[in-house]
Amino acid sequence: MQASELQSRFERIRANKLFEIFVISVIVVSALLVGAKTYDMPAGVASLTLVLDWFISAFFLTELTIRFLAERRKRDFFKSFWNWFDTLIVAVSLIPADDTELALIARLVRVFRVLRMISIIPELRLLLVSLVKALPQLGYVMLLMFIIFYIYAAIGSTLFEAINPVLWGDITISLLTLFRVMTFEDWTDVMYETMEVYPLSWLFYLSFIFFTAFAFLNMVIGIVVNVMEQESAKIRQEAAEENNEPTLKDVMQEVSALRAELNARSREH
Amino acid sequence: MQASELQSRFERIRANKLFEIFVISVIVVSALLVGAKTYDMPAGVASLTLVLDWFISAFFLTELTIRFLAERRKRDFFKSFWNWFDTLIVAVSLIPADDTELALIARLVRVFRVLRMISIIPELRLLLVSLVKALPQLGYVMLLMFIIFYIYAAIGSTLFEAINPVLWGDITISLLTLFRVMTFEDWTDVMYETMEVYPLSWLFYLSFIFFTAFAFLNMVIGIVVNVMEQESAKIRQEAAEENNEPTLKDVMQEVSALRAELNARSREH
Amino acid sequence: MQASELQSRFERIRANKLFEIFVISVIVVSALLVGAKTYDMPAGVASLTLVLDWFISAFFLTELTIRFLAERRKRDFFKSFWNWFDTLIVAVSLIPADDTELALIARLVRVFRVLRMISIIPELRLLLVSLVKALPQLGYVMLLMFIIFYIYAAIGSTLFEAINPVLWGDITISLLTLFRVMTFEDWTDVMYETMEVYPLSWLFYLSFIFFTAFAFLNMVIGIVVNVMEQESAKIRQEAAEENNEPTLKDVMQEVSALRAELNARSREH
Amino acid sequence: MQASELQSRFERIRANKLFEIFVISVIVVSALLVGAKTYDMPAGVASLTLVLDWFISAFFLTELTIRFLAERRKRDFFKSFWNWFDTLIVAVSLIPADDTELALIARLVRVFRVLRMISIIPELRLLLVSLVKALPQLGYVMLLMFIIFYIYAAIGSTLFEAINPVLWGDITISLLTLFRVMTFEDWTDVMYETMEVYPLSWLFYLSFIFFTAFAFLNMVIGIVVNVMEQESAKIRQEAAEENNEPTLKDVMQEVSALRAELNARSREH
Repeated sequence: MQASELQSRFERIRANKLFEIFVISVIVVSALLVGAKTYDMPAGVASLTLVLDWFISAFFLTELTIRFLAERRKRDFFKSFWNWFDTLIVAVSLIPADDTELALIARLVRVFRVLRMISIIPELRLLLVSLVKALPQLGYVMLLMFIIFYIYAAIGSTLFEAINPVLWGDITISLLTLFRVMTFEDWTDVMYETMEVYPLSWLFYLSFIFFTAFAFLNMVIGIVVNVMEQESAKIRQEAAEENNEPTLKDVMQEVSALRAELNARSREH
Repeated sequence: MQASELQSRFERIRANKLFEIFVISVIVVSALLVGAKTYDMPAGVASLTLVLDWFISAFFLTELTIRFLAERRKRDFFKSFWNWFDTLIVAVSLIPADDTELALIARLVRVFRVLRMISIIPELRLLLVSLVKALPQLGYVMLLMFIIFYIYAAIGSTLFEAINPVLWGDITISLLTLFRVMTFEDWTDVMYETMEVYPLSWLFYLSFIFFTAFAFLNMVIGIVVNVMEQESAKIRQEAAEENNEPTLKDVMQEVSALRAELNARSREH
Repeated sequence: MQASELQSRFERIRANKLFEIFVISVIVVSALLVGAKTYDMPAGVASLTLVLDWFISAFFLTELTIRFLAERRKRDFFKSFWNWFDTLIVAVSLIPADDTELALIARLVRVFRVLRMISIIPELRLLLVSLVKALPQLGYVMLLMFIIFYIYAAIGSTLFEAINPVLWGDITISLLTLFRVMTFEDWTDVMYETMEVYPLSWLFYLSFIFFTAFAFLNMVIGIVVNVMEQESAKIRQEAAEENNEPTLKDVMQEVSALRAELNARSREH
Repeated sequence: MQASELQSRFERIRANKLFEIFVISVIVVSALLVGAKTYDMPAGVASLTLVLDWFISAFFLTELTIRFLAERRKRDFFKSFWNWFDTLIVAVSLIPADDTELALIARLVRVFRVLRMISIIPELRLLLVSLVKALPQLGYVMLLMFIIFYIYAAIGSTLFEAINPVLWGDITISLLTLFRVMTFEDWTDVMYETMEVYPLSWLFYLSFIFFTAFAFLNMVIGIVVNVMEQESAKIRQEAAEENNEPTLKDVMQEVSALRAELNARSREH
């Protein structure tokens, strides 16, 4: 009885609008704190941020506990991806970091508390889910692009290694150099250098740019087309349902029924 | 009686096509004047621009007064956003600027008179309204992008501050540096510098570029899809209304009515 | 009689497929000639190109004359934009250029003979027409963009002239600098320079990039939407006509006619 | 009998899922090998890669033979583009390369074995086919773009050759320089240099950027529109077939049939 009473109290807290706003505020404060730490601070303020940091950790732990206790069936709590997400972030930022070696890592880990903004705002959660859903459909284009990159990187590091080992030393560095070429970042410097030894090497760069640009274009258009179809199909259906509109099939059935009736009646006759 | 007569005269002025063209001409002249002041001018011309400047201010004030007086219900004047917009621009450019300290500010403020071009040309006004309408729908993607920027800026200023404080000194500067990376502007210089200390820091830059490019792509496609649906829905409806086209529902009702009639008749029979 | 005979012979020449291929070949040769002249050539080859050049001019003149004579009503010849276009190009490249001062201009003018490729290939002509048709619809977005550019250029040349007169000297140079910023070409160099005097000037650059990118996006999406509607409307209509498909209106009329007939018959009855 | 038995065994091997996975694994290993060779290796590992290389060549030859023997009608084998593709890659990588002069070429040729990834994974094959299908539709826009490039390159190498022969020496180099300008890669450096001699040469660059950007935009939008139409037409048809939906034509025929029947009956009556 007492447990159930406690639970419904937790449920009420969780559903409370004010509580939600307070949680968002604490996340914003924790984000600002992360930003503030990148500035040089007087000792007094620095110790204040330390205190604030511990308060935020404690608050996040409390909030998570309330959310866990408010769940009627404890198993359901771990069925939600976002609960796992929050638990991980909270757990990781609880690791003590007094050790000077770990201090940097601890500071970096606290940065990820800003990500809780995504789990707390439903619109951002939806946005992220839609981004993740688009990923598999990009998969094969990404693979094709990687194959193009890999072949060009292998050719590049074979031919141009002697010219500039910093850019073409091995296949990993070559891949990075090619990514740089794809973003058009000082790509002519890279090209002019190799053209001094191989005057025709502009063919290497131009064909690479054409292939990747083409694959990229294909990818973008692919997604646009796909998203549009889904959207327009959904909207057409919603509009039809909203207007209680008959389909062409309904009309057809109505006419056929009419015909059948007339036939039946004429046979009676 | 006399007041009413005066008002109708103002209304006629406001609606006059020639008056509108004259107003646009004055705005163009004021824009050219702003441009002309950026050149070195002989003293004679400089004093001419000063006179022209005061004439333009006076003309804008007069025009606004006419538009205000032409309004039958004075309250309606302040209901339009564009009237507020024009009033603000005119009011601000009336501030005297003989003081040498304020001279620069006064000159800058006069630049914004060019914006009156937007309030006077209906097509530009429509364009701006459609841009503003698209803003909220961008809101959450912008927020998501800012969160990505913020996390990367926090990590960047924590890890790379010692390497180059000019680029990674605090979180504000880091945000600016990341924006630079997103525009691909000499981003490899930034990367090569940090790769000397952290050889794996290319992961930081590449993942950042992927995330922001992905979010940006999502944003663009989102708007395209949205605008297209609205447009196609509007156009389909207009086309149907124009052709006086029956809907599937109308056909269905007609068939059902036919059936009911036949049934009624057969019962009579 | 003889004149008419001559005319029909010209018509046959104009319509001859082989003649068309020959014309295209001459245009390609004239294009290659233009390219060849940019290389250093031995004296023998140089005089050969001179001869070839005169032959091409003569051939173009002959071809134009044939096309003119083949036209039955001479007035119709000048109704086509492309005939004017060809006549202009041919006329201009006939100007003698022995004078050393005009030699450069004459050489440049001959470059435009390559444009005849567009007037001779129907697909390219169609492409150009569709590009020109899209222009007015871009008009107002271009104007809005120019207003943004102008305001920023005026502010830029007022505030930053003292910092770097090469980039911000007057409004024309400032417009060019802003175009450079819009293409992201070393824009941070421009920004870092002014940030030393005005630390907040990054606001100037970032807001400019946002505004122009936004306007550009709007423009691109606007065209996409517009082109798509026209295409899909055209295609839907073509498909309906091809299949001899009845419209919803036809079905409605058929059902209504049936009902009217039944009513008429029952009244007779 | 025996031959047929052998053939069906080969067919079973070819269709075996495990065999396919093994082939993909070998391709991945050969890709990794290509990458590994770009690193400095101790002599022992280098001789190992040599052995592995020969094993891969032998395996690819075996696999191709199996696929050839598994084909019932040998002619059909050469009807598939992808079989030609694989045969070429395998044949080329069998060329012995002990000669030091050919060693580099042999190494480069082996890189193309990575391309077998495309022929073995159906999704990638489909992607490539769709890219190739889009090519002709790009043809004329590419031609138009090349004409613009060619004219600007001819003008550029005529006017600017004296200023900087490295960038504008002849028409080929000028084309490369213009491609660089189109990618916005340090294009202002190119422009500022020529503006010192021809102060109005910014017109050359800006008009070039506008024309190419415009043509590029047109190309992208053209493909988007085209792909979308095809997709939406296909989807609409599939949806209609799936739902066994009647067309407007079917309804029309049904109503007309009903009318004909009623008329016939009334005549009987």
